[in-house]
Amino acid sequence: MSAADADRRLRAVEAFNTAYARVLDDGDLTVWPNFFTEEARYVVTARENWDRGLPAGLIYCEGRAMMADRAFAILNTAMYAPRYLRHFITNTWVGTQADGGAFEAGANYLLTQVLVDEPNARVHQVGRYIDVFVESEAGLQLCSRHCVYDDALIDNALILPV
Amino acid sequence: MSAADADRRLRAVEAFNTAYARVLDDGDLTVWPNFFTEEARYVVTARENWDRGLPAGLIYCEGRAMMADRAFAILNTAMYAPRYLRHFITNTWVGTQADGGAFEAGANYLLTQVLVDEPNARVHQVGRYIDVFVESEAGLQLCSRHCVYDDALIDNALILPV
Amino acid sequence: MSAADADRRLRAVEAFNTAYARVLDDGDLTVWPNFFTEEARYVVTARENWDRGLPAGLIYCEGRAMMADRAFAILNTAMYAPRYLRHFITNTWVGTQADGGAFEAGANYLLTQVLVDEPNARVHQVGRYIDVFVESEAGLQLCSRHCVYDDALIDNALILPV
Repeated sequence: MSAADADRRLRAVEAFNTAYARVLDDGDLTVWPNFFTEEARYVVTARENWDRGLPAGLIYCEGRAMMADRAFAILNTAMYAPRYLRHFITNTWVGTQADGGAFEAGANYLLTQVLVDEPNARVHQVGRYIDVFVESEAGLQLCSRHCVYDDALIDNALILPV
Repeated sequence: MSAADADRRLRAVEAFNTAYARVLDDGDLTVWPNFFTEEARYVVTARENWDRGLPAGLIYCEGRAMMADRAFAILNTAMYAPRYLRHFITNTWVGTQADGGAFEAGANYLLTQVLVDEPNARVHQVGRYIDVFVESEAGLQLCSRHCVYDDALIDNALILPV
Repeated sequence: MSAADADRRLRAVEAFNTAYARVLDDGDLTVWPNFFTEEARYVVTARENWDRGLPAGLIYCEGRAMMADRAFAILNTAMYAPRYLRHFITNTWVGTQADGGAFEAGANYLLTQVLVDEPNARVHQVGRYIDVFVESEAGLQLCSRHCVYDDALIDNALILPV
């Protein structure tokens, strides 16, 4: 893979993550599953589990339908205090495999949260995305996204996708 | 607008924001108004106000002269504890309108603060820039910058521009 | 230096910093000295010292051998509580000198830490890298990296490089 192609791929992933974060920061959950392929896996899991190869996660979705279901549940049935989340995504990298199909990528994320009773923004979760992307005609889509967080404890129930 | 042009625009906005943040991180306030056009608007406002279309803001400047006035007042008349600020600007995006004139852009920002009596760096404010840029011969300038913060409360008086 | 060359240089430094942070985030300290030239200087110092031109630093290494020594000591002899660190590197800039040899660069960094007895990720240190890079056949290497932190106090002993 040429340096120019690797650079283009990196820019595309950065643009993807920016769009992804905007949707979540705006709370627009019904759009969120569209970032994934039909059969994609979405997992939020602790670094301790990831490092040991343990599959359990705080959130575990197999397939876009399961994500849509989760989004619907959050928007329509769950009871939780209003909050503002914001994603800061940095240190993005891409795998340089040249076969044109799926490729690995990753980034660090820092998620801040504002609650009514915690009015100053606080660091809510930090970790890294470990991704597999596929390039389709409609642009990039996630085949899998693992959100591997460093925190040993997530304060407040984790309700929303990362 | 071609993908290459959109990419160039994005890179230019990222470079602009890096230079903008360096000036504020270094406390070099007299230079700060130069990032704006003569008639530009600079507003720091709460997300709650922004979402409801309310114009009030913590800081509201119309025109570069008003920004210069504020910078002068902070540097020469205001009394406040010394502090170090630092901007972390991520998730930058640009509008892809091709008319060559003004265009929209935005980014997430996280601002940390160190005070003498709070010696560990803390998250001071998080939010997003919502910008209108114009391209002139001298490079990019801001026609307007709205700093829309998530925090429900800004601890310590907000003295310095964001 | 052409705009395209400056852009390539910026991309190269961003990729370098991403790789550098991955090594430290993964705790892979034996690899860390390889980011530097044989004679490189690595210093972690307070903004107050830096601004006054004072040379003292929390960490001060002259030459890769001294870094390797430090890495070995941390991995094999030091006693400290397990922790997870994560780097968020933003606002990267490069000097545009065109002489092809060494050049200046910099970025802001935010470092988070998770400890067993502080299970929520916290901001551990914020500051900026002030770097001199050299381009060799093997890619970029650091001739010097000064990590200039804003914090007036670093909580917990600083054990690991930044």
